[in-house]
Amino acid sequence: MTAVPPATLPPLVEIAATALFALSGALLAARLKQTFVTASFFALVTGVGGGTVRDALLNVPAFWLNDMWIAPAILATALLAWFTPHRWWEGRLLEWADAAGLASFTVLGTTKALALGVAPVPAAILGVVTGCAGGIIRDVVAGVPSIIMRPEIYVTAAALTAGLVVLLAALSVPSALAWIVAGMAGFALRGAAMIWNIQLPAYSRGN
Amino acid sequence: MTAVPPATLPPLVEIAATALFALSGALLAARLKQTFVTASFFALVTGVGGGTVRDALLNVPAFWLNDMWIAPAILATALLAWFTPHRWWEGRLLEWADAAGLASFTVLGTTKALALGVAPVPAAILGVVTGCAGGIIRDVVAGVPSIIMRPEIYVTAAALTAGLVVLLAALSVPSALAWIVAGMAGFALRGAAMIWNIQLPAYSRGN
Amino acid sequence: MTAVPPATLPPLVEIAATALFALSGALLAARLKQTFVTASFFALVTGVGGGTVRDALLNVPAFWLNDMWIAPAILATALLAWFTPHRWWEGRLLEWADAAGLASFTVLGTTKALALGVAPVPAAILGVVTGCAGGIIRDVVAGVPSIIMRPEIYVTAAALTAGLVVLLAALSVPSALAWIVAGMAGFALRGAAMIWNIQLPAYSRGN
Repeated sequence: MTAVPPATLPPLVEIAATALFALSGALLAARLKQTFVTASFFALVTGVGGGTVRDALLNVPAFWLNDMWIAPAILATALLAWFTPHRWWEGRLLEWADAAGLASFTVLGTTKALALGVAPVPAAILGVVTGCAGGIIRDVVAGVPSIIMRPEIYVTAAALTAGLVVLLAALSVPSALAWIVAGMAGFALRGAAMIWNIQLPAYSRGN
Repeated sequence: MTAVPPATLPPLVEIAATALFALSGALLAARLKQTFVTASFFALVTGVGGGTVRDALLNVPAFWLNDMWIAPAILATALLAWFTPHRWWEGRLLEWADAAGLASFTVLGTTKALALGVAPVPAAILGVVTGCAGGIIRDVVAGVPSIIMRPEIYVTAAALTAGLVVLLAALSVPSALAWIVAGMAGFALRGAAMIWNIQLPAYSRGN
Repeated sequence: MTAVPPATLPPLVEIAATALFALSGALLAARLKQTFVTASFFALVTGVGGGTVRDALLNVPAFWLNDMWIAPAILATALLAWFTPHRWWEGRLLEWADAAGLASFTVLGTTKALALGVAPVPAAILGVVTGCAGGIIRDVVAGVPSIIMRPEIYVTAAALTAGLVVLLAALSVPSALAWIVAGMAGFALRGAAMIWNIQLPAYSRGN
């Protein structure tokens, strides 16, 4: 697994995606009546969690160790969640920030795996893991039920995004277009699932 | 820690062990009334979790990123758990699949560590961690009590297997024989603990 | 990120810090009425957890795989927790062992990151993650509320230590002195928070 320099997303996307997930972490900490420092820590582990798991699996250093913008982005997000009026964050904003982070990190994970020479199917799986890991770590550390256990579609949205990234890459669709289409599709599916409460059929005992 | 090419198990064993743990993950997801996609995700993180932790600690890429059979094995296992009659999976089958995965991944973890030049004692410890990590990740993500906290023997069975692998290697026992003996011993101990409810003495306050 | 050979702490400090965290893990397992083997496993994952996460993020092999003293230190700690009179461990000893482990591993994590060429801010963040990860893993695997969710200062103490390590390094303070000052400051802050129940202001809804 040598580091070929192929199509990779601009660092700005990774920073924006980190900030989105970080926001969901800071909001959860605020909801759980934690302090600002703990909220910043939650912003950190949620924001960089998925990408860090991805990098550990790909056997490369964690992306945020060599990026000078990730730490300020995390801190700014925590300050934003902390000092803006509480009513901004009522309702499902935490879930929307999570949905955007899910779609973004799934694109980032799949793309980085493909860039490092991983085959399409494992690359897509790694993308799903990258997208879901941040939210799982946030929820497990906070001691709340993991978001992937919710009834509405979640992992499926990540799978749609990851599948589209590898499919469109195989069809030689220009990378930027493929990333936008794939990310938007997953975000739209997750959003629709949240709005209309769409669920896949659950396992039912009679079968 | 250079990658010497010594005695390693055939890839088939890793795929079979992954499928066994994956089965326990898919069965737990079904029991928790999750969807098929979530059940596949549980099959994945349980199936590859222990080996992935092992590879992250050994500082090599996750084994399943370069294996074209792991993903189909996970999917087939999830389909099997999903579409076969429910009564097949009643009782303790989840625990039996877990026990087989525990013994297999403990052998795989210890052997890979030895193959990469790790000393016997840390190699055995890494084997125990490899064996136990998949089930721990499955239970933590699902939000159920971790299997290692159960009263019956669990970590001890992994320790028996890992200890036998390093002991038999030190005695120059042929690798294939050593792996089978060590794996069977741990599986038998865990199985006996399940059948007869064997427990080690727990910490008691008076001491 | 090349492995320059700069100021690193003597291995003895890492072994002592591992033993301190390991003690907190063994004590929690005893409190939860687990067996000796499970208590040893908790001592292991708590003791080496933070440093292992650090090493996975830095993309180097886990420190304890090449250290012949970590395993005996873990075992000795588990035996100590198990066979000494129970009343020794009443009260908050678990929290004090955790506080000493927190300060020590935060110094170790920050220092190793700086030594591997990570910039000061991400190095300090990695130090905080290193310090907190062991206790988080211990609590999550045990199924008890994570220590970082407690009302008293915790993450803040790690942040103080990590900040002092990078600040004193930037001021060219001799390494040994910097490590002691930084570690003591974080330990004292955490200790004071435990004794006088010091809390930072929590998020309050009106804002």
